[in-house]
Amino acid sequence: MNKVSIIMGSSSDLDTVSEAINILKEFKIPFEAKILSAHRTPKELTKYVEGSPRRGVKVFIAAAGMSAALPGVIAAHTILPVIGIPIESGNLKGLDALLSIAQMPPGIPVGCMSIGKSGAKNAAIFAVTIIALNDRKTAKRLGDYRVDMRRKITKSKIKL
Amino acid sequence: MNKVSIIMGSSSDLDTVSEAINILKEFKIPFEAKILSAHRTPKELTKYVEGSPRRGVKVFIAAAGMSAALPGVIAAHTILPVIGIPIESGNLKGLDALLSIAQMPPGIPVGCMSIGKSGAKNAAIFAVTIIALNDRKTAKRLGDYRVDMRRKITKSKIKL
Amino acid sequence: MNKVSIIMGSSSDLDTVSEAINILKEFKIPFEAKILSAHRTPKELTKYVEGSPRRGVKVFIAAAGMSAALPGVIAAHTILPVIGIPIESGNLKGLDALLSIAQMPPGIPVGCMSIGKSGAKNAAIFAVTIIALNDRKTAKRLGDYRVDMRRKITKSKIKL
Amino acid sequence: MNKVSIIMGSSSDLDTVSEAINILKEFKIPFEAKILSAHRTPKELTKYVEGSPRRGVKVFIAAAGMSAALPGVIAAHTILPVIGIPIESGNLKGLDALLSIAQMPPGIPVGCMSIGKSGAKNAAIFAVTIIALNDRKTAKRLGDYRVDMRRKITKSKIKL
Amino acid sequence: MNKVSIIMGSSSDLDTVSEAINILKEFKIPFEAKILSAHRTPKELTKYVEGSPRRGVKVFIAAAGMSAALPGVIAAHTILPVIGIPIESGNLKGLDALLSIAQMPPGIPVGCMSIGKSGAKNAAIFAVTIIALNDRKTAKRLGDYRVDMRRKITKSKIKL
Amino acid sequence: MNKVSIIMGSSSDLDTVSEAINILKEFKIPFEAKILSAHRTPKELTKYVEGSPRRGVKVFIAAAGMSAALPGVIAAHTILPVIGIPIESGNLKGLDALLSIAQMPPGIPVGCMSIGKSGAKNAAIFAVTIIALNDRKTAKRLGDYRVDMRRKITKSKIKL
Amino acid sequence: MNKVSIIMGSSSDLDTVSEAINILKEFKIPFEAKILSAHRTPKELTKYVEGSPRRGVKVFIAAAGMSAALPGVIAAHTILPVIGIPIESGNLKGLDALLSIAQMPPGIPVGCMSIGKSGAKNAAIFAVTIIALNDRKTAKRLGDYRVDMRRKITKSKIKL
Amino acid sequence: MNKVSIIMGSSSDLDTVSEAINILKEFKIPFEAKILSAHRTPKELTKYVEGSPRRGVKVFIAAAGMSAALPGVIAAHTILPVIGIPIESGNLKGLDALLSIAQMPPGIPVGCMSIGKSGAKNAAIFAVTIIALNDRKTAKRLGDYRVDMRRKITKSKIKL
Repeated sequence: MNKVSIIMGSSSDLDTVSEAINILKEFKIPFEAKILSAHRTPKELTKYVEGSPRRGVKVFIAAAGMSAALPGVIAAHTILPVIGIPIESGNLKGLDALLSIAQMPPGIPVGCMSIGKSGAKNAAIFAVTIIALNDRKTAKRLGDYRVDMRRKITKSKIKL
Repeated sequence: MNKVSIIMGSSSDLDTVSEAINILKEFKIPFEAKILSAHRTPKELTKYVEGSPRRGVKVFIAAAGMSAALPGVIAAHTILPVIGIPIESGNLKGLDALLSIAQMPPGIPVGCMSIGKSGAKNAAIFAVTIIALNDRKTAKRLGDYRVDMRRKITKSKIKL
Repeated sequence: MNKVSIIMGSSSDLDTVSEAINILKEFKIPFEAKILSAHRTPKELTKYVEGSPRRGVKVFIAAAGMSAALPGVIAAHTILPVIGIPIESGNLKGLDALLSIAQMPPGIPVGCMSIGKSGAKNAAIFAVTIIALNDRKTAKRLGDYRVDMRRKITKSKIKL
Repeated sequence: MNKVSIIMGSSSDLDTVSEAINILKEFKIPFEAKILSAHRTPKELTKYVEGSPRRGVKVFIAAAGMSAALPGVIAAHTILPVIGIPIESGNLKGLDALLSIAQMPPGIPVGCMSIGKSGAKNAAIFAVTIIALNDRKTAKRLGDYRVDMRRKITKSKIKL
Repeated sequence: MNKVSIIMGSSSDLDTVSEAINILKEFKIPFEAKILSAHRTPKELTKYVEGSPRRGVKVFIAAAGMSAALPGVIAAHTILPVIGIPIESGNLKGLDALLSIAQMPPGIPVGCMSIGKSGAKNAAIFAVTIIALNDRKTAKRLGDYRVDMRRKITKSKIKL
Repeated sequence: MNKVSIIMGSSSDLDTVSEAINILKEFKIPFEAKILSAHRTPKELTKYVEGSPRRGVKVFIAAAGMSAALPGVIAAHTILPVIGIPIESGNLKGLDALLSIAQMPPGIPVGCMSIGKSGAKNAAIFAVTIIALNDRKTAKRLGDYRVDMRRKITKSKIKL
Repeated sequence: MNKVSIIMGSSSDLDTVSEAINILKEFKIPFEAKILSAHRTPKELTKYVEGSPRRGVKVFIAAAGMSAALPGVIAAHTILPVIGIPIESGNLKGLDALLSIAQMPPGIPVGCMSIGKSGAKNAAIFAVTIIALNDRKTAKRLGDYRVDMRRKITKSKIKL
Repeated sequence: MNKVSIIMGSSSDLDTVSEAINILKEFKIPFEAKILSAHRTPKELTKYVEGSPRRGVKVFIAAAGMSAALPGVIAAHTILPVIGIPIESGNLKGLDALLSIAQMPPGIPVGCMSIGKSGAKNAAIFAVTIIALNDRKTAKRLGDYRVDMRRKITKSKIKL
């Protein structure tokens, strides 16, 4: 089983994170989605992350805004890959979250995506690329997804 | 007893943090100094922070660079005040750390200082202002420190 | 008596600052709220800050936008802790105020919070952590507040 | 076979990228290292990326500075995971490369690391977390690496 | 024949790019407009760019947002001049696209315009300046355009 | 008498500020130079600024780094023009000081110059333009200075 | 006669610039307002600026957005003081204009105000401080304006 | 005749600009190089630019730092293409110059290159792409230059 765990720091992140969830559904990847905060529920977060391998989790996706410690703190408690989504909340529009997630110190990496909905979508696709390494059906779907994406663009017409 | 706990994410932060230590020594504030990382030693950090009140810690000073999760993660495990020093490590010269420390989400505050040595010095003075609220000797020393600072400036001559 | 003094540079800051006021009310911390400007009413500000200790003020919270000199100027006139809220006014959305408040030169610290409403809320909670050091009831309320915050998150459900 | 392909845009990137190479050697992960540019050798790059799966490549690490199109262009030609290292070259010290790599548009993700040497090291560790998902020995080494890292910190002494 | 090829990374860029199209129409410059992505349709893009000289294309205008690899990738496949328009999509409002397009590494230049609609308009005018070098009618129209622009400003009245 | 008062926040600013002093000497403008801090010597600063008109001061030049409150605080205590020099001290290289000085709230203006030595030189020349409004000799010298500057450029040769 | 000349780069700047005009009317300062562009009407601009002293102009206020060359180009053609207003037009919200106006190279200064309406208001007040140096009535009005401003703040009530 | 005119704002820019000159020499493109400033020698600049077409100039390259008005002001006086090089002078390392040059308002375009030496080199190559449109020998040399560039990369070896 190849499950993805999606953790977001606040229920207000769900609108953005749903882009990731839609992709996982489309690729038929099983997933868990949880609201847990590095700052407000550190113990519940630690416990949840540490128990994830037993539940079949292979990849974490973590979404957080502002100082956005969540992805890094998850990475501190697991050796599974962690993908971070910078949420566009707050007055700096996610630039703060982007720097917090990307600028991880040496030793504990997080794979940082773009800010907001495009990043959420990409986080799920990135998880799919990892899962596809050992799952032929997923690899097949990913290949088809790419072909579809290409087709949509090449078929689009410009009305001048 | 009014102890300050100084935590830094890496031994390379000590050069900056020593500015804080010097101030605490000058004000005769007892302190502990530890190297602990939110990302590399999360459990040791949690344990240390939770045990701090029993050892007389009243204020935390936390120094970290880059994604700088340390001050926020300490704040997640204590109701004591946490003061953050953005370390100037990395290619963004501490701007990343400044945003990570200042832009804490609502609920768990950290008092963010300026980047680097001036921030380290100020973190200790800020801890002193907190301790001085209930410690007359420290308040007296803080008042004297201000007078000295003022005197140094008013006595400084400009050689044209 | 442990009073908090909240000073804002302009009446238009009140919408943001009310987040701080609500927290202080919730924690039953007595407070004063004033509109005073470092640039437009410097004398009134000085006089007010210098008289604050006699009225029982233990902590200052200062909110200002743009060049945001207010928190630093208050800190220049007191040895009490000063907490700064960068207001999101102006075209730079508070990034200017954040840098002005955080980047205090060595000697006179200000504890900088995040930009806008989250920073206002955190400023008050940070004041509470300071007051709680010597006030058991406030410490108890702060512990309960944390438990409540945790509970709200762990109870929140994600509708997929 | 689980090979990592490391591609850098310029021979001047090697000083930074060697941090990644050292980690892969330490973890005994087989790897290829190539200098190929999205702008100066687009055809050679395409050909190399498309032939990589046949040579056992499972993960790409791509390092580039300034407008840093390399990781995204690699991702355009593969469904394997691509990890990006923003190189600190140029007058913006890698901030430009960081934004170029992190801000990928929806559909083609790249996992962005921090700027420079810390990012290079983390890129390799991130590749290791992916390979470890299906390679027990690598997973074991990663666990041991974490324990060592933790030990180094907890043993470090602060000389005051 | 002096044709301009306008390529945009996404159909959502058309609203901005239409500013360029309007200018080309006004100057009676023949043009092609295509939606092609450096990341999602790299092969179609390469093929299209390589075939452009045969269709009479003399100048490329490329519009892209976020990591904005498109103009640089076009430039990698042609020795014709490439003009880049940073699209204001995403949470960073085009600052990311501006840096990606302007900060091209040495060897493969792109002429970067301003972000958004003003940049789109200017991209077309810049293409006109290039075409006008060898086309008297276009040079004449450009001179007249300038005179008109000047006249509009000098005739505008300020209502106080 | 048309005196310029130059105030700097720290003796370490003198290296930069001496560019301004050299210009004032060159234009034979009488001046005072003082080290006074908005944060460390607020009362001495207020007293000095308020007494300046009596000593013939017509224009203030104020240099400060980091949160750089000095020029604005001077402006709060005078109706004379205040020119601000952002000092390049600290890890943000004067960007913080530039924003603090330029982004003054409505009502109390400061004329902000560029960061560092070029700003110091320009601050003095700007003071000269103001004094020249009512001083023919100074106006004459300013005209000559411009001619000299022009001559130096037109005479400079490029060695290829 | 002490006239202020207000120049704006585009008629769309008038909404912002009217804040400056209102102040000049309030202080009964005579003024001219013109739309002239450094880029689109360079000759008309030069001619207008050079003729201004003869019409009694003592101070220039120049408003421009984006690359905002206008204030600097005016300063190139006069020895009168030039005050710059960064207009908030374009996707960078005036940060580009702020840097263009403030970061003038050594030799030709411009006094930069804050971005947008607050900067427009302050530009006019700054012009007033210059004119007040040799005009007692204006100095008196400026003093009264300050007292009024102070009074408005001290009278403002906070409704909790 | 297809001459390139290279204009730099200051003799200190020559170290950077020489990268452009070297390329023009390599491609045997005739060129003029001048030091002229938009701020310090506006009249000489205007005259020089207006006379350039008569001397066979087809493309302008303009290098300037800080507020970097030069490229835009040249563009205001010509309908020839203008390519801008942001010089890395000053404390903001060319970010100010980059924004000033790229963020040209609608109507008068400048093709902005990257900051510093890479931008200088690219400015010349960009001029070459324009000249090559109507000059077969130059087009041939540009094609060969590309092949050489490609060859250097594909031949470079990585010493591990």
